[in-house]
Amino acid sequence: MSEPLSVAVEPTPDRHLVAAVEGAGGRVVGIDEARVLVWIGTGAEFPDLPDHVEWVALKTAGIEEFVSAGVIDDRRVWTNASGFYAENVAEHALTLLLAGLRQVNTAVLRHWDKEPIDTAVRSLHGSTVAIIGAGGIADSLIPRLSACGADVIAVNRSGRPVDGAALTLPADRTGEVWGQTDHVVLAAPATAQTRHLINADSLAALPAHAWVVNVARGPLVDQSALVAALREGRIAGAALDVTDPEPPAPDDPLWSLPNVIITPHVANPSSGLTRTMAPWLAENIRRFLAGEELLAVVTPGSDY
Amino acid sequence: MSEPLSVAVEPTPDRHLVAAVEGAGGRVVGIDEARVLVWIGTGAEFPDLPDHVEWVALKTAGIEEFVSAGVIDDRRVWTNASGFYAENVAEHALTLLLAGLRQVNTAVLRHWDKEPIDTAVRSLHGSTVAIIGAGGIADSLIPRLSACGADVIAVNRSGRPVDGAALTLPADRTGEVWGQTDHVVLAAPATAQTRHLINADSLAALPAHAWVVNVARGPLVDQSALVAALREGRIAGAALDVTDPEPPAPDDPLWSLPNVIITPHVANPSSGLTRTMAPWLAENIRRFLAGEELLAVVTPGSDY
Repeated sequence: MSEPLSVAVEPTPDRHLVAAVEGAGGRVVGIDEARVLVWIGTGAEFPDLPDHVEWVALKTAGIEEFVSAGVIDDRRVWTNASGFYAENVAEHALTLLLAGLRQVNTAVLRHWDKEPIDTAVRSLHGSTVAIIGAGGIADSLIPRLSACGADVIAVNRSGRPVDGAALTLPADRTGEVWGQTDHVVLAAPATAQTRHLINADSLAALPAHAWVVNVARGPLVDQSALVAALREGRIAGAALDVTDPEPPAPDDPLWSLPNVIITPHVANPSSGLTRTMAPWLAENIRRFLAGEELLAVVTPGSDY
Repeated sequence: MSEPLSVAVEPTPDRHLVAAVEGAGGRVVGIDEARVLVWIGTGAEFPDLPDHVEWVALKTAGIEEFVSAGVIDDRRVWTNASGFYAENVAEHALTLLLAGLRQVNTAVLRHWDKEPIDTAVRSLHGSTVAIIGAGGIADSLIPRLSACGADVIAVNRSGRPVDGAALTLPADRTGEVWGQTDHVVLAAPATAQTRHLINADSLAALPAHAWVVNVARGPLVDQSALVAALREGRIAGAALDVTDPEPPAPDDPLWSLPNVIITPHVANPSSGLTRTMAPWLAENIRRFLAGEELLAVVTPGSDY
């Protein structure tokens, strides 16, 4: 029988992940004897890596903080959590879009102000929703949107058709989306290419009834351009689980605009994160032991 | 060629309905020469009916006000709008359930209060939702819930299995639902049998994480029992598009409870009502002319 795989779960031995390691044929050890490091801490506190660590598993899909901390090297395999939380994030994106269209925020703030709410309510069914950055989140979101009677335009890197989308466009044709869609969901990683994807130009090209939903990363949106568009009624609203910075300053105009919903980066609640991650880690340990390709391998030199 | 059907659209000649009548082979006339009356006014202002009116089409699904005004007779056919707005109402029910589970109301009221919101967020996927009064709304809601990864328990009058539901129970076994479900959506008509269906007993039998959604009629809920259950944390929250009375009084405790979402009876917005009704009216005119059974015929002697 083979030796159990030595896995460090740091900086704290989270019980869900420890159980996943042990259930998948691993043994939890200190980093000084580990072949695998499961790191659930921040980028700033990331440790020096011994050479015997062959694989580092990170707990988030967005790994900007590890990239900017310069810890990701090419001497071992790195995985993030891309796709692991897709169902949670897709559910939150649908929630934000529906809450915006159906004026839940206005109803919560302005008790039974029936006439303006009644005339402002819009339906998701019969509308078109563009998903920018169509990966795992889109795979979970598209069947939800379809069941709600919405059509989907997907934008991904390659333009390779996405299941369930009426139209898939490659990222370099994103500019064609704004005039063809009713609403936008941002689900792309934060990279130099996606920075300020929603800007004065895209906001001007969207229809006046559009809602913009961001469940990805704050810097995808040029927030001052967004505030200007919302103030002038050039789009109908914005529903944001992420902002730039987080949280917005107490005097940020986003807080006072009537057509904005902000949730505090909870699409994938950190309170349940390791429990959700656990079965994915177990599967990756099984794959590592079997010599198979891991899920969610970080592309060397990229931000995700 | 046959005479066009004489249809009165009263008390105001709504343009969507007039176009539907004319497109379906009808001619809009005054009530004094009409074979059909499309009534879009209230129960209180309902006119005396000449004998030559063979069919009265009402614009709402709930017709309590016409029943209590005593205008519904057995000398002609009456239709309501049961099922016509089902897609709208189902979408609103899904919105309210998701907004509650994902703490949108708390996020709107308490800016970036991350820790308590993060720990309170729950997911719809993996949960069970009971739909009480499984008719047209449930037919639209079940595929949406299924796509969101939820199982459905349906309750209808007969107990005849509802498509897509994991379990269907007849109304007289509703009491078995509370212990088997995570959440409840009320979609039943207001009748003597459904009055205070949600009461101290059902609230005590629901799990502590349950959300109760009401898109039907306010009197289905014993509101003081609901307030007590919410205050004591016996259920997680209530999301109500209808209340008893409407609106709740300004000092109603519902307005101040943190775990309540109230929208002002806009699941089927009145601003778009006749536009949504128009194709259904056209279809019923076609059926009337063809001698076929009409959609949404009111059961004589019943409240719906």
